This record gives sequence, C-alpha cells and structure tokens, in this order.
Amino acid sequence: MTGNGLQRVIVEHVSPEIDAGRFYIKRVAGETIRVEADIFADGHDHVRGRVLYRHESEKKWQHVPMQPLFNDRWHATFGLPKTGFYFYTVVGWVDHADTWQEGFFKKYQDTQHMGVELLIGANFLEAMLPQAGKADQKEIKRIIGILRDESKYDAAINLVLSKEMHHFIELYPDITHATAYLRELKVYVDREKAGFSSWYCFFPRSASPVEGKHGTFKDCEALLPRIAEIGFDVLYFPPIHPIGETFRKGKNNVVNALPGDDGVPYAIGSKDGGHKAILKDLGTLEDFKHLIAEAAKHDLEIAMDFAIQCSPDHPYVKAHPQWFKWRPDGTVQYAENPPKKYQDILPINFENDDWQNLWKELKSILDYWCEQGIRIFRVDNPHTKSFGFWEWCIAEVQKKYPGTIFLSEAFTKPKVMKELAKLGYTQSYTYYTWRNSKHELIEYMNELTQSEMKEYYRPNFWPNTHDINPYILQDGNENKFIARYFMAATLSSNYGIFGPVYELMYHEPFPGKEEYLNSEKYEVRHWDWNKRNRLTDVITKVNAARKVNPALQITNNIRFCETYNDNLLAYYKKKDNNHILCIVKLDPFGKQFAHVQTPLWELGISPGQDFNVYDILTGNTYIWNQEWNYIQLEAWDLPVHLFRIEV
Amino acid sequence: MTGNGLQRVIVEHVSPEIDAGRFYIKRVAGETIRVEADIFADGHDHVRGRVLYRHESEKKWQHVPMQPLFNDRWHATFGLPKTGFYFYTVVGWVDHADTWQEGFFKKYQDTQHMGVELLIGANFLEAMLPQAGKADQKEIKRIIGILRDESKYDAAINLVLSKEMHHFIELYPDITHATAYLRELKVYVDREKAGFSSWYCFFPRSASPVEGKHGTFKDCEALLPRIAEIGFDVLYFPPIHPIGETFRKGKNNVVNALPGDDGVPYAIGSKDGGHKAILKDLGTLEDFKHLIAEAAKHDLEIAMDFAIQCSPDHPYVKAHPQWFKWRPDGTVQYAENPPKKYQDILPINFENDDWQNLWKELKSILDYWCEQGIRIFRVDNPHTKSFGFWEWCIAEVQKKYPGTIFLSEAFTKPKVMKELAKLGYTQSYTYYTWRNSKHELIEYMNELTQSEMKEYYRPNFWPNTHDINPYILQDGNENKFIARYFMAATLSSNYGIFGPVYELMYHEPFPGKEEYLNSEKYEVRHWDWNKRNRLTDVITKVNAARKVNPALQITNNIRFCETYNDNLLAYYKKKDNNHILCIVKLDPFGKQFAHVQTPLWELGISPGQDFNVYDILTGNTYIWNQEWNYIQLEAWDLPVHLFRIEV
Repeated sequence: MTGNGLQRVIVEHVSPEIDAGRFYIKRVAGETIRVEADIFADGHDHVRGRVLYRHESEKKWQHVPMQPLFNDRWHATFGLPKTGFYFYTVVGWVDHADTWQEGFFKKYQDTQHMGVELLIGANFLEAMLPQAGKADQKEIKRIIGILRDESKYDAAINLVLSKEMHHFIELYPDITHATAYLRELKVYVDREKAGFSSWYCFFPRSASPVEGKHGTFKDCEALLPRIAEIGFDVLYFPPIHPIGETFRKGKNNVVNALPGDDGVPYAIGSKDGGHKAILKDLGTLEDFKHLIAEAAKHDLEIAMDFAIQCSPDHPYVKAHPQWFKWRPDGTVQYAENPPKKYQDILPINFENDDWQNLWKELKSILDYWCEQGIRIFRVDNPHTKSFGFWEWCIAEVQKKYPGTIFLSEAFTKPKVMKELAKLGYTQSYTYYTWRNSKHELIEYMNELTQSEMKEYYRPNFWPNTHDINPYILQDGNENKFIARYFMAATLSSNYGIFGPVYELMYHEPFPGKEEYLNSEKYEVRHWDWNKRNRLTDVITKVNAARKVNPALQITNNIRFCETYNDNLLAYYKKKDNNHILCIVKLDPFGKQFAHVQTPLWELGISPGQDFNVYDILTGNTYIWNQEWNYIQLEAWDLPVHLFRIEV
Repeated sequence: MTGNGLQRVIVEHVSPEIDAGRFYIKRVAGETIRVEADIFADGHDHVRGRVLYRHESEKKWQHVPMQPLFNDRWHATFGLPKTGFYFYTVVGWVDHADTWQEGFFKKYQDTQHMGVELLIGANFLEAMLPQAGKADQKEIKRIIGILRDESKYDAAINLVLSKEMHHFIELYPDITHATAYLRELKVYVDREKAGFSSWYCFFPRSASPVEGKHGTFKDCEALLPRIAEIGFDVLYFPPIHPIGETFRKGKNNVVNALPGDDGVPYAIGSKDGGHKAILKDLGTLEDFKHLIAEAAKHDLEIAMDFAIQCSPDHPYVKAHPQWFKWRPDGTVQYAENPPKKYQDILPINFENDDWQNLWKELKSILDYWCEQGIRIFRVDNPHTKSFGFWEWCIAEVQKKYPGTIFLSEAFTKPKVMKELAKLGYTQSYTYYTWRNSKHELIEYMNELTQSEMKEYYRPNFWPNTHDINPYILQDGNENKFIARYFMAATLSSNYGIFGPVYELMYHEPFPGKEEYLNSEKYEVRHWDWNKRNRLTDVITKVNAARKVNPALQITNNIRFCETYNDNLLAYYKKKDNNHILCIVKLDPFGKQFAHVQTPLWELGISPGQDFNVYDILTGNTYIWNQEWNYIQLEAWDLPVHLFRIEV
C-alpha cells in the first residue's frame, strides 16, 4: 500500500512528450507550447487541472489553468520568452467545491430546501481563506457569515449562485490531494536563428578573384557584401584545417594526387596541426577572426564544419594511437566500405577504452572555436559517430556557450536521422533534396510538420550541397533551379544552398553520380562571383520576403491547398495577420493552370468579399473574392508565385 | 559523462508497452508474445538483438534472437506456459564479427589479399572461446589454427566463408557493450478462463420452482444441469448479502417499499451483517459452499458480485463512521445524482484519512470469499471507487489467490473504462450492448482488437444485463435476440447473458428506459426454467461449438470479410487449422444476400480448388471453390451462419 490513497485523479498521456520524456522537445524564444493531458477521476465529481512550468533559472513553478477539450482531454498554452531549458508537467485534482456548486444549482431548481447545502458551502469558503489575499479574505468571510445565517436564506442562495462565488472557487481550489503527472518534461528553447536561417555554403579556397589562385579569408571578406545583398545570414565553410598529404586524393577523387593538388579538406590534419589549426593557404587565425567580425557587420554568422576524422598525418595518430583501430599486422584501419578503401581517411574508433579522454578532446575542439567567436557548427556525418557522444557533447557546449547551433549532416536511415535530432541537434538535413513530385513533397512535409517530428526535428532544406548534385538538376533547366530553390526557401524556414554553383546553375555531374564534375571537394575552382541572372534575382527577392513576412519564418505552420493539378503545388502559411500563399509549377517545360482552393476560413474572409493578392516577386496585385481562384503559370514566365494575401 | 560510452546501439520503441511500462500487458497461459523494437547503431556495422524474458519464479533470464523486419525494426516471439508475471526486455549490440565476415566476402570477391583479414577473423574466434562448450571450443581452436597458418591460405578462406563460421558468429556474439532497453516490461499471464468464458447471470432469489416463493441456493442447485446443458461455464449472481431496511426501495424502484417487499440486493448490509454475510432467505454459508461444489461438478464456476456500497443499516456505518461522508447537520451523505437522491445507498468516501484501514477491510471481503472457494468477481461500478484502490487490491488478491478473475462492470467514459483494465481488471464490460449497425460493430471490434487495447483490455460482450434492457431488444423480435446473442458469443471469446430473461426473450421495458419492467433488482420473479425455444437451441449449439473450435476461444484473431451489403456482417476467425466464418443478418425482417469475400489466402486455398463449408447450426455442408461466395439468408430462417471451413 504505497502512495497517497487520497489522490483520486489520473493524469496521463501528457503531450508533447518524446519517448516517455527520454528526450526534450524544442522551441525558439518567443514561441509558445500547448500542453495537453488526459485528466479524469473515478465517479462523477468535477476535475480540474493546470500546467506547471518553470525556466531552469527559476526555482518557483508558475501555472496556467487547463481547459477541457473533449473525451477527458485538457489543454493549456504558455509562453517561452527565454532561451534555455523549461520544465513542465501537469497536475489534476477533484474540485469538490465546483461539484457542490453545480449540485446546489440543480437541487435549487428542484425546489429542495438548501439549508445543509449552504453550510457545506460555508465550509468550502472557509477552506479557501489561507490561500486568499487580505481583500478576498474579508469578502469571503462576509459571504460565510451570510451562508451561516438562517435568517438570510434567500440572500445566501443568491450568493452561492453568483459569479463571485464561482470566481473564488476557481481562484482558490483545494489541491491538497492533487495528482502530479509522473514525469517532469523538458523543452529546450533556442535562439531565433535555430528556427529561421538562410545558409550559404562555399569553399573559401575558391574565393580568389584571380583564376588559379588559392582563395583566402581576405578574399572571402570581399564576397561578404554580395552574399549579404542576396540575403543570406549564415555563411558555412567546409573544413578550413590543414590537409593531409599521405594518400592525398587528386582532382575528381582520383586515388593518387598529382604534385600541386590541393587535396580534400575532409582529410583533416597534417604536420601543421589538426582540428584546431587553420590551413596556411587560407590565412591565419587572426585573419579568420577578422572575417568573423566583418561578416557580423553584414548580419552574417560563420558556420564551421565539424568533421570527426583524420588524415594519416593528423597529430592524434601519434599522440593518441588508442583512438584508432589497429589491425593484427600493426597497420592502422583506414575508412572503408568493402571492397572500397579510403586510405586518406582514418575514422576515429569510438569503441576504445580511452573514450572519456577522446570525448573531452573532441569537445575541446568545439570549445576552442566557440572561443574564437563561432556559434554555429555543421557536423559532417554525425551518424557515423557514437550517439552517446553527441548527446553529451551538444549539451555541454550549449551549457558553456548558450545559443550554439548544431546542424546534423546525416543523409541516412530515417530512425538514425531522427535519433540525432532527439539527442540534441538543433537542425537537420532532410530528404528534401530528393523529393520532387507533388505527392512526395506533401507527404514528406506532413511527416515533418504533423507527426511527432515537429516537436524535435527542425528541417533544413537544401536543393544541392557540395556533396550532392541531384539528378533532377543535372540538366541545368532554369525553371527547375528556380522551383527547387523557391520550395526550399518557402516550405522550410531553415534552408541553404551550395554556391556559387547553385545560383550560377552549374550542373555538370561526375558521370553517373549525384556529384559535381570537378568538385571543389577535390580542387580549387574559380567563379564569376559578380554574375547576375534570373535566379539570383529570385533569391534576393525571396530572402528579402522571408525577412519581413513572419509566416515564412516558421515551418510547422504549413497547410497545402487543393489544386487538382499534379504539376501545381500550392501551400499556405500564416503567422498572426501575415498570410502567404505559394504556388509552384513542378513541370519545368509547359504551361500549367488550375483553380487553387484558398483557405478563406483562415483569412476570416467570406466568399464574395474582395481581397488583394500581391505577388512579391513580380509586384502584380490581383483581386480575388472566391475560395477557388484561377492560376495559370506560363512556360516562358517565372514558375512560381509568392503571394502575400492582404486582409 | 555518465553511462558507458562504448554502448553504440540504440534500443527504443519496444512493443508491446503500455504507457512507458507503467502498466503490464495481459495474456493467458499457453499464448505467446511477439516483441518488437527499433535497434540500430551509428555507422554501418551490423547490429543484432535478442529478447530477454523470465517468469517471476525464475531468476535466470532466457533469450530468443530477434529477426529484422524493415526500417530498423526487429521482432521475436516467446511462449508463456505459466500463469503469473513474466518480465521482458530487449538488448542490442554491434556485431563486429558479422560485419567483418560480410566485408571479408566482398573483399574476397574483389580479389584483394586476405592475409590481415584472416588474422582479424582468428581474433574474433578466440574471443568466442569462453562462451563455447567443450566440443565447440575444440572446433574453434582448429579453425583458428588454420586461419593463422599462412600455408593454409585457401583452406582458411573457405572456412571463413563457410556456414560453420557463420553459425559460431551467431551463437557466440560479443555482447560486452550491448545496450539494454531502459525498462523491464511485464506481462501478466492469466489462467485460460480469463480469455475464454461464457457467463450466465441470474438472481438466485428468482430460482424457486414455486411461484411467489423466495429462491434459495438449494433451488439454484436444481438449475445447474439445465445451465450446464446449454453450455455456460460461469454462473454469476448479483449480491447475496443481507439487504438494508432503512429507505428500502419497492418494486420497480419506487421510493417507499411496501411491507413484504424484498428490497434491492445492492443495498447491502443489515443487522444480519454486511459483505461477508449471506441473506438468510437464500440459505447458509454451508448451503452456498455446497452450491459452489455442485456447480464445479458441472464445470460451472460461481462468480460473486462485489459492490462497494452500504445500506444505512450496514455494520460499517456504526463501526467505521469515518469511512462515510457526514454533512454539517450531522446526517450521513447518501448517494445522489442531483437533484436525484438515493437514500437507501451510502457510498463509501474513499477520500478519508483512514483510507488504509478501509482498503484492508474491503480487500478482506474478497479474501473471505476466496477462502470459501470463489475465484471470480464481477465488480459493480468500479469506476465510482478509487483507481488506486483497485490497482492495489487486485494485485494483492491475485498474489494470495492466483487465478482470481475480476470483471469490471463499468459502463462509462472510454478513458475510465480503459484505465480500470490497465490497473488490473481481467475482463471488462463493453459498449457492445449498444453497437448495432455494421459500421459500428466493425469500428468497435477493430478498436478492441487492433489498437493498443488488445494488449490489456479483454472485452466481455453482453447483449443484455440485469441493469440493461437495450432499446434494440425491446420489441422482442426473435431474429434480433438470436443475432445479438450470436454476435456476443462469436465476436468475443468472453461473453454473457442475463437469464432466463434473455433466452425467454422477455423484453418489456420500464417505460422510456433501457431497464426491465418488474426488474428482479427490485422484486422476486418466477420463471419457467424448463422452456425451450429456437434461441435456447442456438445458444446450446453455439456454446458447444465454442468448446471445440479454438478459433472461437480468442477475440483478437478477428478479421472482417467484405460483403457489400450493410445488412450482412461477415467475419473470419482462425487458430492453427481451425477456421470459422460467421455470417449475421442485421436486418431482422427481410431476406438479405451478398457475395462474401472468403480469405482464401489465410486458408491456403487457391481459387478453383474445392473446399467444404460446414454450417455448425444446421448441419448443412456447402462446397465452395472461389474467393467470393454467394450467401442468402431468408426472412423465415435463422439469421446467422456459423461455418467451419474444412481445409
């Protein structure tokens, strides 16, 4: 016979809750959280509930009353103004006073004598006194006096049936035997950029204005105005560390580099140092810090690549041989995908007995770069490193450097991608890169935004990356480049492109593969950074629109609109009074038309009432007044509409 | 940095699991349990998993290997031969040896030199030695010798690629760094009657063969052959305790009883005693025990009613006034549903400070009757008593008296009914009584047997009860009585009827209510127990069929069959080689026909192949040979088919 037998209320199935509270959910500062729970008791007494919550910096719990939905489900919403962890849980209790008041009303209607009932009510009021403030105490005592005065029977009845009585009952419940949900749950509140960011990736070594010359951080600084102008706010660099020479790969990933080949930035480490060093060709640490500061002036944050692997020349190999796998013949185990060998890369063996020192050293790399001013890391292939390490490392870094953002570059099996997000990754790459048909796009967006994933998995949509030149873009069709870009930037509030390859619509593949020919992963390239085209114009306008339209700064607010045309994708996003309607022509070649179902019920518009539909990209305004509106996208025109609906 | 950093495998989403392991799942002895889990690791190494399980009486865990399904989901099944609790959980690990063997094969196909690989393999084998038995040790050592002998290169390669090598890898995995699921889960295994039972309820006070005379236990004994003959195995009596006199209710629930009125058995307790006493008119304790023994000879178990409430004359009221609610005027709080008053009934107030003694006393009632030989309790309105009490009480009674069955008589809100089942009730009443249309029946059956409810909620279907004369039966239509009975007994493996009212098709309602006129709850009735009719014939045949057809002894094996006629319900049940197909005409008046889709794929029959369909109720045999078969049920004939398909 354990527990408190006087707790009659059941509180269960609290949401949001990930895997029975094993993982925290995520929000960004300024958002809210809607908590729901099943709350019920035995018998027919009234129950009530509240959500308890507190920021990790506060000891005192705050609470917000829950409201019933249906079928014993209750809900309440609270705000999350601060970053960091909040805790929340639910309590429920039997409200005897409320039950009594309802019974009182029914008995009174039945013309029963209410003498005993008034005395019961007085007792309930008396029990409220310790909770009440001075003024309320005085008033409550006055009511008690009347309820206990037989000569004031009619006045007493009127008082019991009054709103004032109900007000006190709601305000001062007796929660002595309240049941608390058996777990306290957590939500991690990130800074706003975790939920709304526009990434631009390029190789700094390709930044030189002089063909054939290795780019430097100084060269990168010269590109900042252009990148800021087209509207990005995160600038992500592949690894900038010394590159190994042993088994160095050549251009187009050939096994043996030629003299003068610059190598692969992911083969990290040389005699010049490892993950805390900078490739001399790019510049010095001071140059890098200067770049970080200059970027900040353009509202650009630098994101670094965190790739846990070593070239055979990495200082770790000699200093910490126990972190690598050694074969019975005394040679080190290089990366492989049998029968393929990647001898220029040594994976760290996380299953080594010195794992605690390994974890500490790896975390110290992040600490080091945080010290230099970095707060965003794109993590390379996190799914090939220990899950436990990520959970620990991300929590530790975020504790020391609040606001640090981690992007998981895991393109792998669904459950592995989800696990990394649950363990702490702020943002995650997605399958968007390969979701092309209308059905696929809607199904995937609904999974991301309507399933439990919405609570912990923040998608970051990339139409291309420096690793992926997707088949759909390999023909260089401009409409595809525009549409794939446009959808990334409007379906998802976090997105990125690998440039200038993307906006220059460079598309030549390594034959048969979803990779670029002459990829910058294996060589220095030279680009005409000043080029402008229809795509750079779209990018500039879309990025500008994202900044001023709050509806585009959220992902989970998406609702698809019916079109009855498989080549026309339509979706609506809303935030307060900001209404965005996007139309995308998925067929890159022909004309497509359809009627689009506009969600008038969300807009608060009645059919027949005029409203303005403003196309942000063209400046055209249309006047609509129906639920179903005709859309036609011409073969020769932009394949997208970015409508702001003005109501 | 807590935990073991060398555990790389994730084990999550184990099923079946109710509310994160807060509640146990249920099975009956002889059944199996299929456990599933997500198991995966970082990277590309192979993972494996096993289910660990043990009976509560054993200390040592047994294990069964899991097999992969798809998308990182794994499964395994184990048997539950004993009653009582079993514990189960899942472990997963990275299988380096298995990974190595696959890589070995790919490298060998690629014609690489395998020297180092053979040495790695020898090391894996060496690690297996401590786990292996003597014979295996010898063989493993022999293989190691060859793998390490450069002169036996070809033989070594053949050995590595052999089934024997894989056999050892599977048999002796290195689980040093295995991850265990974070919870141990529980399944409670009941005796068989928990899953397969046929209940017959009647009022013993109506058992006298002499009109106007109060029935006795002796009279009940005379009825046993008849009840056994028509095939029931549980005989359930409403309360048999002394009945209160204060505020006694009269016939048809009128407020004031007339002299000589026998009162309501649910107003328990008088000067003659409370819940451990027997109403003198029925007989003595010895008579009752004699009846229990006589019933057992007919394979009938007596089920008692456990109704926690008291008449104002119950000894508890004076002995334990603290267990009741007292009003400010010093009077006791009777049951009420404002504005209605039920002054003959005092509810126990579970919210009293003496709750621990209350719980003990209530449990002692069950212990007392268990001592007399009772092992089945039908609990009256459990949803108006404390949830915590039931969880404790059921567990305690089942610990002391294994095999005790509790039937929850809660007709209330869905979540409350589910909670009682989760807290320990063996069987539960359902909404079947009010599910009449084809759509409702299929939807409800699917909820019971396809949702999580199948793991903990054992339905018991009643077409009527002594409290409920459902509207659908109030016209006395024979086809309805047959169909509603038939569905209860074939949809659900647990079912019951309130007789002889049901089989005599007594149907007169108290006007406007779903209750019987002249209900036995308020008066002694007299019945012609020897009457036979078409319904008693159906009952006898269906009960006999249930006993010899294992497919009818399970509820969760149901699959509905398409008919394209909303008045024809068809369903199929299978257990090993026993195949049952039921057809029910829901329209009580007209002829109905349709083609029924027969699940040939379950029967292992190809279209065109003859198979016999035997109607258990009529003795007719049909020869079918197609998937879709014509069914016609005439207005004048039985409204049901009970087919056994012979393959």
